[in-house]
Amino acid sequence: MHAAKKNTLQLRSVAIDAYRENVAFLHRDCQVYRSEGFQALSKIEISGSPDGHSVLASLNVVDDPGITAPGQLGLSMEAFQQLGLPEGAEATVAHAKPPSSLQAVRRKIAGERLVYADYAAITRDIVGHRYAKIEMAAFLVACSQTGLEREEVLHLTRAMAGSGEKLDWHEPLVADKHCIGGIPGNRTSMLVVPIVAAHGMFIPKTSSRAITSPAGTADTMEVLAQVELPLDRLHEIVRAHRGCLAWGGTAHLAPVDDILISVERPLSIDSPGQLVASILAKKLAAGATHLLIDIPMGPTAKVRNQSDALRLRKLFEFVGDRVGLQLEVIITDGHQPIGRGIGPVLESRDVMQVLENDPGQPRDLREKALQLASRILEFDPDVRGGQGYTLARDILESGRALEKLRAIIEAQGAQKAVHQVGRLQHLVEADRDGRVLAIDNLQMARIARLAGAPMDMGAGVDLYKKTGEEVRLGEPLYAIHAEFGADFTFACELATRDSGFTLSV
Amino acid sequence: MHAAKKNTLQLRSVAIDAYRENVAFLHRDCQVYRSEGFQALSKIEISGSPDGHSVLASLNVVDDPGITAPGQLGLSMEAFQQLGLPEGAEATVAHAKPPSSLQAVRRKIAGERLVYADYAAITRDIVGHRYAKIEMAAFLVACSQTGLEREEVLHLTRAMAGSGEKLDWHEPLVADKHCIGGIPGNRTSMLVVPIVAAHGMFIPKTSSRAITSPAGTADTMEVLAQVELPLDRLHEIVRAHRGCLAWGGTAHLAPVDDILISVERPLSIDSPGQLVASILAKKLAAGATHLLIDIPMGPTAKVRNQSDALRLRKLFEFVGDRVGLQLEVIITDGHQPIGRGIGPVLESRDVMQVLENDPGQPRDLREKALQLASRILEFDPDVRGGQGYTLARDILESGRALEKLRAIIEAQGAQKAVHQVGRLQHLVEADRDGRVLAIDNLQMARIARLAGAPMDMGAGVDLYKKTGEEVRLGEPLYAIHAEFGADFTFACELATRDSGFTLSV
Repeated sequence: MHAAKKNTLQLRSVAIDAYRENVAFLHRDCQVYRSEGFQALSKIEISGSPDGHSVLASLNVVDDPGITAPGQLGLSMEAFQQLGLPEGAEATVAHAKPPSSLQAVRRKIAGERLVYADYAAITRDIVGHRYAKIEMAAFLVACSQTGLEREEVLHLTRAMAGSGEKLDWHEPLVADKHCIGGIPGNRTSMLVVPIVAAHGMFIPKTSSRAITSPAGTADTMEVLAQVELPLDRLHEIVRAHRGCLAWGGTAHLAPVDDILISVERPLSIDSPGQLVASILAKKLAAGATHLLIDIPMGPTAKVRNQSDALRLRKLFEFVGDRVGLQLEVIITDGHQPIGRGIGPVLESRDVMQVLENDPGQPRDLREKALQLASRILEFDPDVRGGQGYTLARDILESGRALEKLRAIIEAQGAQKAVHQVGRLQHLVEADRDGRVLAIDNLQMARIARLAGAPMDMGAGVDLYKKTGEEVRLGEPLYAIHAEFGADFTFACELATRDSGFTLSV
Repeated sequence: MHAAKKNTLQLRSVAIDAYRENVAFLHRDCQVYRSEGFQALSKIEISGSPDGHSVLASLNVVDDPGITAPGQLGLSMEAFQQLGLPEGAEATVAHAKPPSSLQAVRRKIAGERLVYADYAAITRDIVGHRYAKIEMAAFLVACSQTGLEREEVLHLTRAMAGSGEKLDWHEPLVADKHCIGGIPGNRTSMLVVPIVAAHGMFIPKTSSRAITSPAGTADTMEVLAQVELPLDRLHEIVRAHRGCLAWGGTAHLAPVDDILISVERPLSIDSPGQLVASILAKKLAAGATHLLIDIPMGPTAKVRNQSDALRLRKLFEFVGDRVGLQLEVIITDGHQPIGRGIGPVLESRDVMQVLENDPGQPRDLREKALQLASRILEFDPDVRGGQGYTLARDILESGRALEKLRAIIEAQGAQKAVHQVGRLQHLVEADRDGRVLAIDNLQMARIARLAGAPMDMGAGVDLYKKTGEEVRLGEPLYAIHAEFGADFTFACELATRDSGFTLSV
C-alpha cells in the first residue's frame, strides 16, 4: 500500500506533439523516477487515481521544472487526451510490462509462421498503444522480409479488420474500388465514383491521404471539398447521393493501419502481404461487399512484371474469397504516370477536364476511369456482361457524372478558397531531339513530393509530354510547381540530376 | 538568399533527454515550421549561422512557448551539445535529405547481400545521427532475420571497427577475452584479468554494461571501483598494472554499436552476425591482438546445441582471421548460472570469495575462470602448451590475483560507499523433496532484472542450490533481493509463476 502511495504524481499536459507516440515526462530529480529505477525510454503505465483507466507511454527525462517539475507527471498531447483527466489530477506510474505479443514478433523475426491468435494479439496491443515505434518497425520489417504465408495474410486481414469500427450500410451491394498505388496522377476514383453513383449503385468511397506518394484521393478531393466528415454526416450524404469521396480516417476503420502507417511512411516499407491485409481490412471494415482492385504494372510501378502481378492478384483473391468479398482484380498499364498533373491541384484539374469532356482532357485518365467504372457497373446484376463500358461512357459524356460529382462536392461542403497551382515554376526541357521512351514513376513522384506535394496543394509536376511523343531540343517536358523556396530548390536540383524522362538517341 | 534568411531562428536548449535521439522543437505557429511544410517526425538539418557545423534531428511540434516559442528552435540536450553553440545563437533549419544508405537497408530487407561500401555508408550515417530509431530498428531486424552471409559479417565488422577511435597500446601482445553472454552470474573477467595481469601479460579489459542481462562486468566492477575513466588515465593504469577493468563507453570505440544498442536493448534483438561483428569490432578498436571468446552452451543459453555453437565458432574464426586477430574460441558449460549471485553486488561477493580462496567460494566460477585464464596465458610464447592451468591456479592460490585486483581497484578509484545487498528479501522454497534437474538461465535473469538489477546494485538473486543437489520440501532454493517495493513485488510475482527451477518428481 505504501509503495503505491509513494508513486502519486500531479498530472500535467505538456504541449508536445509526438506524432502518435505517447510520451511521458518525469523530472530527473523526481522521487518516483529515482526510486523505481526507470530509465529513459522505459515504457511506463500511467493510471488515473484511484481506479482510473490507464495509458502506456515512453518515458523522457527532463531537467527543466518549467516542462515538468519533480512531483509532476507530464504527458504529451495525445497521451494526455487518452487519459482524459484534468491537469493537477492524481496519477500513478509503474513499469509497464512489455506487451506479451512481442514474443510473437520475435518468433516472426526468427522466421516462424504465426497464427490468427498472434496477429489478433499484436493488433490489439498496437491499437492499445502498447507498442513503441521501434517495436512496430520490427514487426513491419519482419513481415516484409520473409514475407507472409497466404494464410498469415488472411489472419492479419481479419485481425486488422476487427481492430476498430465496422460500418454497416444496410445495402445488399456496397461497391468499392482500390488501386495499390505507385502511379502518379492516377486519380480515377474521382471519376469512377460519380459514374457508378450516377448509375444508382451504392459506392461510399473512403480514401487515404498520401503516404509516400505526391497525392492521395483524399488530398486531391480536398482541393474541391471537405473530406473530413463525421460518420453520421457521411451516412446522410451517401444515402442522398449513392456515393461520396471522403477521407477514411475519421471513421476509425482498421485503426491499427493508421498507427502502423506512422512508421511505414518514414521507412517506406510496402510488402505484398501487408499491402493486401491493409487494403482488404479497410474495405471490410468500411462495409464493402463488391470490390475492384487495380494493380498497375510497369518497369517503375510497384509491380514490375506479369508474374508478380499474377501472384499479387491471386493473394487478393485468396483472402477476398475467405473474408466474403466479391472481388475482381484488374491489371492495368503502369509504365508511366496517368494524366498530366501530379499533386493535388494539378490532378483535380485533370479530373474536371475529363468530367467536362474538355477537348484537351488527358485521354489516358479518361480511358482508364471508363475501364474501371465498367467493371464495377457489371457487379450490378441488371447490367449485362460486356455492357459496362458503353454504360460508363454514356454517363460520362452525357454530363451526368459531372453533375453527380458536383452534388457530392456540395454535400460534403465545397471549398471556399480556390487553390491555385504553386506560383514558383520551373520548366524542365529536352536536352536533344528525340522520342519519349519512358517516364519514371518513382522519379516524378519524388520530384513532386520535394516540390511540396501533397502538403502544399498547388505543388507538383505538370507533364507536357508522355511516352511515344516526339520532342525537340529545348522543348519543355514538364513544369515543376512549388509554393515555397526551399522546396522548389530541392525539387529543381533533383530534376536536374535526373529528369525522369528517357529520350531516344 | 531571401529563403535562407527567413529560416533563421534563435537557439534554445530544451532540457529533455531523448536517449540518443536528437529531437528538435518548433512552435506550431513558428513561421519556418508553417512555410517549409515540415511535419511532425520530419528529419531536419540544423546549421549554426553563418557557416556553422550542422546536426540532424527529428522534429516535434510544441504549442507551449515556455518550451519553444515561435522564432525559437529548441534542441534536446544531446543535440544541443552536438551543435556546440550557446543559447540565443542563430541557427537555420532545412529539410534533411534522407541518408542515402537507407537504400542499402531497403535492399537488405528485400533479401539482397550488401557489400563493404554499403555497411561503411550505413555505419557512417548512424554515427552521424542521420538515422532515426525506427530506421535503425529496420536495419537490425533486416540483418537479424535473413541473417548475414559471413562475408557480410566481415564487412560489417570492418565498418563498425572504423566508425570511431582506435586504441594503440604499443605492445606486441594485447590480450582480451569476451563472453557472448546469456549466463547469469558469469563474472569471470574479474578473475581472469587479475590472474593474467599478475603473470605480466598486457590485458586492458574494457567491458560493457548490461544490455538485457542483470549485470555486465562494468556494472559489477563498479560496485568496487570507478569504471568510467578518461582514456589517458586508462592508459596510465594499464601501463602501471598491465590490466584494468573499465567501462568501454568513454573510449568511443566502435561508437555505432553504442547507438545501435539503444534500439537493440528495447527490442531484445541478438543475431549471430551482429553478435560477431559487434564483439570483434569493439575488440579491434580496443587494440586487442589476442582474443579468447567464450561461448556458453546449454538448453537456456544463447547457444542451445553443439551445431549452433560450432557454426558460431567458425564465424568468429572466419572474421577474426581476416581482420588479423589471434583468436581462440572455447565452448563452455552454459546449462545453468555460474556462481551463486546474480546482480552486481551479489556477483562481486562471489568474485571476492574466489580471489580470497574462501572455503565457501562458488567452485564452478573458480573452475571456469581458471580454464579461461589458462587459455589466455598460453597465448604467451613463453608458456608451454598445457601449462596454463597450473600457472593460473598458482597465481590464484598464492593471492597474487587478489593483490592485483586490489591494485587495479585502487588505481581506478575505490568506491567510497560500500554497496549492500538489497534490503528486501524473499526466499523461494522447494515445493517438494527432490533433486535440482535444471535452472533456467533466462528466467533467473528475468527475475533478477525485475528485482532491479543492474540499476539497483544490491538487487538480484542469490542461488542456494545448483543442479544435481538434493533439496527438501520447504528448503530455500534462492533468495530474491530488491531495494524498492514495486520492483520487489514484480520479481516475487514472476518467481511465483515460474521459479526457474526444475526438481525431480
